Amino acid sequence: MDRVVTFGEIMLRLSPENNLRFVQADKFETAFGGAEANVAVSLANYGVDAAFVTKLPQHEIGQAAVNSLRRLGVDTSGIVRGGDRIGVYYYEKGAGQRSPKVIYDRTHSSIAEARRGDFDWDEIFDGASWFHFSGITPSLSAELADICLEACKTAKKKNMTVFCDLNYRRKLLSGEKFSATVEKLLEYADYIKDLLVDTRFDTDEQCAEAASGAAKRYGLKGVAVTRRFVDTNGEKNLSGMFAYGGKTYFGKKFTVCDVERVGGGDGFCGGLIYALLNKFEPQKAVDLALAASCLKYTIPGDFNSVSLDEVTALAFGGEECEIER
Amino acid sequence: MDRVVTFGEIMLRLSPENNLRFVQADKFETAFGGAEANVAVSLANYGVDAAFVTKLPQHEIGQAAVNSLRRLGVDTSGIVRGGDRIGVYYYEKGAGQRSPKVIYDRTHSSIAEARRGDFDWDEIFDGASWFHFSGITPSLSAELADICLEACKTAKKKNMTVFCDLNYRRKLLSGEKFSATVEKLLEYADYIKDLLVDTRFDTDEQCAEAASGAAKRYGLKGVAVTRRFVDTNGEKNLSGMFAYGGKTYFGKKFTVCDVERVGGGDGFCGGLIYALLNKFEPQKAVDLALAASCLKYTIPGDFNSVSLDEVTALAFGGEECEIER
Amino acid sequence: MDRVVTFGEIMLRLSPENNLRFVQADKFETAFGGAEANVAVSLANYGVDAAFVTKLPQHEIGQAAVNSLRRLGVDTSGIVRGGDRIGVYYYEKGAGQRSPKVIYDRTHSSIAEARRGDFDWDEIFDGASWFHFSGITPSLSAELADICLEACKTAKKKNMTVFCDLNYRRKLLSGEKFSATVEKLLEYADYIKDLLVDTRFDTDEQCAEAASGAAKRYGLKGVAVTRRFVDTNGEKNLSGMFAYGGKTYFGKKFTVCDVERVGGGDGFCGGLIYALLNKFEPQKAVDLALAASCLKYTIPGDFNSVSLDEVTALAFGGEECEIER
Amino acid sequence: MDRVVTFGEIMLRLSPENNLRFVQADKFETAFGGAEANVAVSLANYGVDAAFVTKLPQHEIGQAAVNSLRRLGVDTSGIVRGGDRIGVYYYEKGAGQRSPKVIYDRTHSSIAEARRGDFDWDEIFDGASWFHFSGITPSLSAELADICLEACKTAKKKNMTVFCDLNYRRKLLSGEKFSATVEKLLEYADYIKDLLVDTRFDTDEQCAEAASGAAKRYGLKGVAVTRRFVDTNGEKNLSGMFAYGGKTYFGKKFTVCDVERVGGGDGFCGGLIYALLNKFEPQKAVDLALAASCLKYTIPGDFNSVSLDEVTALAFGGEECEIER
Amino acid sequence: MDRVVTFGEIMLRLSPENNLRFVQADKFETAFGGAEANVAVSLANYGVDAAFVTKLPQHEIGQAAVNSLRRLGVDTSGIVRGGDRIGVYYYEKGAGQRSPKVIYDRTHSSIAEARRGDFDWDEIFDGASWFHFSGITPSLSAELADICLEACKTAKKKNMTVFCDLNYRRKLLSGEKFSATVEKLLEYADYIKDLLVDTRFDTDEQCAEAASGAAKRYGLKGVAVTRRFVDTNGEKNLSGMFAYGGKTYFGKKFTVCDVERVGGGDGFCGGLIYALLNKFEPQKAVDLALAASCLKYTIPGDFNSVSLDEVTALAFGGEECEIER
Amino acid sequence: MDRVVTFGEIMLRLSPENNLRFVQADKFETAFGGAEANVAVSLANYGVDAAFVTKLPQHEIGQAAVNSLRRLGVDTSGIVRGGDRIGVYYYEKGAGQRSPKVIYDRTHSSIAEARRGDFDWDEIFDGASWFHFSGITPSLSAELADICLEACKTAKKKNMTVFCDLNYRRKLLSGEKFSATVEKLLEYADYIKDLLVDTRFDTDEQCAEAASGAAKRYGLKGVAVTRRFVDTNGEKNLSGMFAYGGKTYFGKKFTVCDVERVGGGDGFCGGLIYALLNKFEPQKAVDLALAASCLKYTIPGDFNSVSLDEVTALAFGGEECEIER
Repeated sequence: MDRVVTFGEIMLRLSPENNLRFVQADKFETAFGGAEANVAVSLANYGVDAAFVTKLPQHEIGQAAVNSLRRLGVDTSGIVRGGDRIGVYYYEKGAGQRSPKVIYDRTHSSIAEARRGDFDWDEIFDGASWFHFSGITPSLSAELADICLEACKTAKKKNMTVFCDLNYRRKLLSGEKFSATVEKLLEYADYIKDLLVDTRFDTDEQCAEAASGAAKRYGLKGVAVTRRFVDTNGEKNLSGMFAYGGKTYFGKKFTVCDVERVGGGDGFCGGLIYALLNKFEPQKAVDLALAASCLKYTIPGDFNSVSLDEVTALAFGGEECEIER
Repeated sequence: MDRVVTFGEIMLRLSPENNLRFVQADKFETAFGGAEANVAVSLANYGVDAAFVTKLPQHEIGQAAVNSLRRLGVDTSGIVRGGDRIGVYYYEKGAGQRSPKVIYDRTHSSIAEARRGDFDWDEIFDGASWFHFSGITPSLSAELADICLEACKTAKKKNMTVFCDLNYRRKLLSGEKFSATVEKLLEYADYIKDLLVDTRFDTDEQCAEAASGAAKRYGLKGVAVTRRFVDTNGEKNLSGMFAYGGKTYFGKKFTVCDVERVGGGDGFCGGLIYALLNKFEPQKAVDLALAASCLKYTIPGDFNSVSLDEVTALAFGGEECEIER
Repeated sequence: MDRVVTFGEIMLRLSPENNLRFVQADKFETAFGGAEANVAVSLANYGVDAAFVTKLPQHEIGQAAVNSLRRLGVDTSGIVRGGDRIGVYYYEKGAGQRSPKVIYDRTHSSIAEARRGDFDWDEIFDGASWFHFSGITPSLSAELADICLEACKTAKKKNMTVFCDLNYRRKLLSGEKFSATVEKLLEYADYIKDLLVDTRFDTDEQCAEAASGAAKRYGLKGVAVTRRFVDTNGEKNLSGMFAYGGKTYFGKKFTVCDVERVGGGDGFCGGLIYALLNKFEPQKAVDLALAASCLKYTIPGDFNSVSLDEVTALAFGGEECEIER
Repeated sequence: MDRVVTFGEIMLRLSPENNLRFVQADKFETAFGGAEANVAVSLANYGVDAAFVTKLPQHEIGQAAVNSLRRLGVDTSGIVRGGDRIGVYYYEKGAGQRSPKVIYDRTHSSIAEARRGDFDWDEIFDGASWFHFSGITPSLSAELADICLEACKTAKKKNMTVFCDLNYRRKLLSGEKFSATVEKLLEYADYIKDLLVDTRFDTDEQCAEAASGAAKRYGLKGVAVTRRFVDTNGEKNLSGMFAYGGKTYFGKKFTVCDVERVGGGDGFCGGLIYALLNKFEPQKAVDLALAASCLKYTIPGDFNSVSLDEVTALAFGGEECEIER
Repeated sequence: MDRVVTFGEIMLRLSPENNLRFVQADKFETAFGGAEANVAVSLANYGVDAAFVTKLPQHEIGQAAVNSLRRLGVDTSGIVRGGDRIGVYYYEKGAGQRSPKVIYDRTHSSIAEARRGDFDWDEIFDGASWFHFSGITPSLSAELADICLEACKTAKKKNMTVFCDLNYRRKLLSGEKFSATVEKLLEYADYIKDLLVDTRFDTDEQCAEAASGAAKRYGLKGVAVTRRFVDTNGEKNLSGMFAYGGKTYFGKKFTVCDVERVGGGDGFCGGLIYALLNKFEPQKAVDLALAASCLKYTIPGDFNSVSLDEVTALAFGGEECEIER
Repeated sequence: MDRVVTFGEIMLRLSPENNLRFVQADKFETAFGGAEANVAVSLANYGVDAAFVTKLPQHEIGQAAVNSLRRLGVDTSGIVRGGDRIGVYYYEKGAGQRSPKVIYDRTHSSIAEARRGDFDWDEIFDGASWFHFSGITPSLSAELADICLEACKTAKKKNMTVFCDLNYRRKLLSGEKFSATVEKLLEYADYIKDLLVDTRFDTDEQCAEAASGAAKRYGLKGVAVTRRFVDTNGEKNLSGMFAYGGKTYFGKKFTVCDVERVGGGDGFCGGLIYALLNKFEPQKAVDLALAASCLKYTIPGDFNSVSLDEVTALAFGGEECEIER
């Protein structure tokens, strides 16, 4: 079986219950999540041997983060323990015209202050065939950018496939610094999701063109891009495309639901990697990835707790959702 | 006043809170419900003298089931106590493209293992004028099919009206076995809801035709059928019709809300029986039944906690729902 | 800085959690609110020096009401303590075709039984430039109508601007009595919201005409009216207009969300008063007021916990509500 | 089977969760209770045919009160519906040296404003053999004192046994007024609990002496008195005695637990009435009553949700409380 | 590192929140547990390689049980999936004189209906050095008794150490049948906890004598017995002893707290096995086991979520429990 | 009226509900607190004009901290807004032999990184007569030690009384560094609580001697010391003494309850400052302070939500805590 290693930050997420605002809450629901951890969870749910690597403090809150991953079958044996804190993000759900809010408190976390010596990539990648990370990881510190580079180089030496979800975060780095940081890594990537420039595309076609361009420019096997847009009826829609082998494949569109806004992109990556590991045709791959992403919007928290059956039923079966009894 | 007796299984329902999945929950909301109990509750809410008959274990969880019915005014004096367990069903709400899930754990329940001697129908039906049960009850065991038959015969001997909600459950019996089981009982029925064959009708007209056919074939006074369908805007709609006296009456359609998916059909039966008890015209009867069913979708749990005023306001008044103050 | 004083009743609100009905609940969420308190909270949120005046019992529930206002920065130093009880209202959220329900238990509250000597308006209005109250306050008792009159007279003597939100409540007074009571006060008003007669207008134009008429008849500087209506797609919409200086200004329309139905009108008043205090053009004033009102529908409870930034972004920016990260 | 009718007020109780204070809470747990309703619940739990009579508003909160009683098997068919409000009491649990707090908001309730014509005692007492009320009921209004008198007279005419739990409440009436009010009723009583004068007795013997005195003075069959006291180890203890047939019987003492402080006295009455109905020896009667009271301290809410088995096991069996498995 | 395999049933536990009774609850807290699973969790917490073997249904509730173990680091790869249901037990906490209640609904569970072919002990025990099971497992069915025998024989063939916690459950088997069933297995055991006969010992000395006797009779290396007793101040105490090498070692006594009553014995076993694996002196072994057991009483749920540091601090350090800051 | 200014850190506290451990929780209760904020809240509760000064980030979690203080009547107008984060502490309640746990995540908070220019003490102290801070504040950073020094000097220039609660925190500074830091400030203090050296005293007398010594050494008006100790029955007790005017006053002892362990010392300071402001005799001052501290143990969260009436009743009245009704 293929083994996928993902690397990044996992944070404690604190959210008011229901539709309460931060200033109204006297309880926070807790969850753990982060782009790469989310992908590892998706893959483990689909039966893939998935490992997540990070650095977390020794204390019980760090342990709870580890437990949240073990619970869903992710291999956590490569997680380094040490440092002072786990990053926190406060998350307030939106409603109607009220936007969701994120307050990050992630600086000085154990992973943000990790050092190169913390990770022995040769050992970590032992037996692994894929490496996944997102653009967030090298954005956390210059040292982490170096660590990612080392990981990418080791992965390529071992003939692993490298998947990078660019995932640009304005609050971490300026666009320029981000490009400079990530471009060095793209050289080692096989697949990417999203584009370096955080452009809003008006149509799927523009999107596809940019994706093909990126594939060519960086010599990538595949480039996937997703797009959320509001249609004339006010519904939120999700579309996606996958540029592969010189062609572009457009996935089946979905209207997304409003239970959760976090983790949709990671759900897409999880589905796409699963499809690629299992040699799906590009069209089927992007369909599966979009179905997985769409289901993520229905599940509270960062992790995409869906089974492979549920994803394939949505991707390739009908869209009904009656109770079976 | 008319007295209605309903007979069947009441289960403990365990559901994760809010939109959580089974694997995320660490609390289950509890409720009790079952097709026939739900109908008894509806009728009691409308002021009808309604009794529910079943078999439940002596222990406190069995008592809690009894209490849930007493609380809403259902006569529980005919409930037999004994046996080992109350059936359980685990229920996970759906959201967006994610389907609701039901896991049944109902075999070996006190009612499924009940014996003929447990119920003295002559005494149970003393003073009663209507008998309601659903196709689920005889599907639970061969002995229960016999018990239902005995109940039907006794009811007819006492000139009671018999209403059977076919309510086919694939997880209990194959279609063939179900037909064989229930057809014997239909001979005693005056009214049924739904049809033996679990066909998906594309139009209300097809539905109506099948209903009229069934009325004729089984010599029934009335046959009611409801249909849920998704319209072109993606909204879920509820329609229904009532074949009676050689004519078919189509009820007012409703777009249904997403608070709860369970108990809509039982809500319909409750409304229809109330209307028939009170000699409503067939058109008004089906309108009332559909309004009751529509309101059920707005109320968490199995029981239709609405008042007669609320149902008639929706059925025959406007559709506004402002706060009155 | 301008100082705004609002005067009225604040009640304890008790609501079942989620979508539960009163008869299902075994917990009530608590909140405090009332038309004028809600306006004071909005203004305090926007940075205005806002005070709320009422009478509340000495006991801890009365204190909790005071605390709910202090928490959000409202000056409560003018609240008189005494009397026997705080008014209560039970509130059940609606869903789909099920209407929300309000059960008032507000008679004999400390404020409803307040006496003229309880309030020294000269002192209360010291340093204040605006006075806001609603038609509810004089509807609570004849004595309160007199107290409002005294307050209005004092306000005018001090050259304050008087804003009255008519807010007719059928459950408190008949339409005739209400008109008789409030007309005496309108003589002192500069601005009103809504109209004496509780007419349902079919179009915004009818609304505007009536507003202009009222402005002329009572010699008012401005008259604002809002209107909720259901469009052909079944969506609930909010529109509003402001008659000022002989012209009528129509605000940007919003589709409103279903988190909360209470306090939308008060949110509008809060936004409008803020705009007028800050010399916004009439068009911008009504736009801001409608955006504030629209956001209120997204926030549980009576109080409009939004910041000025959020309101102006919605009023004058785009309508996007993505997570910024 | 004997039928017991109890008459009094049932209130909505609102309590902060866990150990929170009123000013910290943003949720209140709801329960319903009142001295006489609590006794009816105890008796229904023990299998006695028990009815509770009161007046409650038509609205859903009134209905929820009715349902809370039906749920536990109390006959509510004699409850009159009408009037404006249900009495409310806010209850804050104590902890350590922090006293529990009760804030009553019970004036103007439907029962407090009930009129003589509301209750037809002849009909209410049809088939009943015992009447129970407490000194709280005649304390609520002069009219209620008259209604109680009428009830007592009717009861005696019908040869019913009358039980009055004096239950003096300082917050309702002065001691003098209370004595004047209740003494008129004692003439019709067979049994009372507690004494007119709210004396703190230092020893059980003083208690017993006073009880015997009262029995003689008012010509009563039996007088029961309970006493809570703190022993030298700081534990709260419950003792009780029963003066009957010229002798005094001291019950088995219990150390009481701290889950709930409300309803202990009513639990005692429920146990005592059950014992007397079933012709227990006086010693066994007081033992059973004390065991029932002791168990009430372990159960949240006003109602004593214990079975007869549990009470008799504690009264006459050992005191172990291991899990049986 | 040593690897310990435990084998038995894991059930879904459903408990009312706080001190509520079954008939009051409308939510159940969920947990998973069972004697052998609890021991595996303890060992995993202490850093031991621990695996739990059982049979669970394929559905999501079965999966949630698996996840609960993975979360805490237990190896679940040997769990067989299939069968119809997971056993359920309803658990009501006691308080004061009110006993805790357990209602079992465990018959027909996947494990109770497991067949010999389901478990390949040769493979399961690959790399393992210890085998732990309790007397509950062979009590579930005759087939399971055979399966245990097969497991024991395989374990001995592989030179593994076998630990059996007798754990007699009256509700499963009569004492005689239990003895007959378990005695066959004792032949393969090295260590046992508790005794075949469910005697209540009045003193630790009687206990020790019986333990030594059992060690001799069955040729065991060690026999541990724990005893809960109430002292003269009403406090619940925990004592324990360990007969080993012809001597008896009495552990340090603890007063136990009242947070949780379930899992104390399993906590003891977890501590004892850890100590034996790590070659602790017998005295230290029983001290550690008792400290682990004592801490279990402080932790809600079946699983003993304590760290080795915490257990050793209590066993061998002081008893203070101030906040360190 | 006297005005008291307190200065320090306020943190977000996150705690699992009930008795759950960190690794079990999926919700955290939120509260805000810190030694000096807690004192300000106590004083505001007693009717004193109390202000709290700190630095908090602009975002909504910072605002929620401000609101928590405003709600209880503390003047927050001197709070500086800016910096990146609010300190967090994770708090797990203990139970029985299981110790409470605190995990601090307070480095890099806005206040820990505050600069001298952030606070204009001349303006802050305008109209104030007392200054309170604890040894925690200067322990947070060297700059904060300087800021405290500046505050102390300004306070003395303005003839204010300075109260310092030493409050040594091992996790922040070594004992030596702490002494060096705080000794410089003691020169300006009038009153202190606790001693520089974190000695455990065995008897109250040793305590008193040390307190008198410190008073002499640093030329203080008064020195208060509290002591928690476990008596022979295992109960936790609180004693305290106050060295003043050459004499030592021992307060009334209390057995403390187990609802909450945080904030007891701050509750003492609040009571003592209130007593000193109001010229209580030293004996009465220490009695009041101890009663306030004792009540804090009964109230969840950091803040001492008690009224002056409750504290004086406990200090100078009896110890009863029956429900008054």
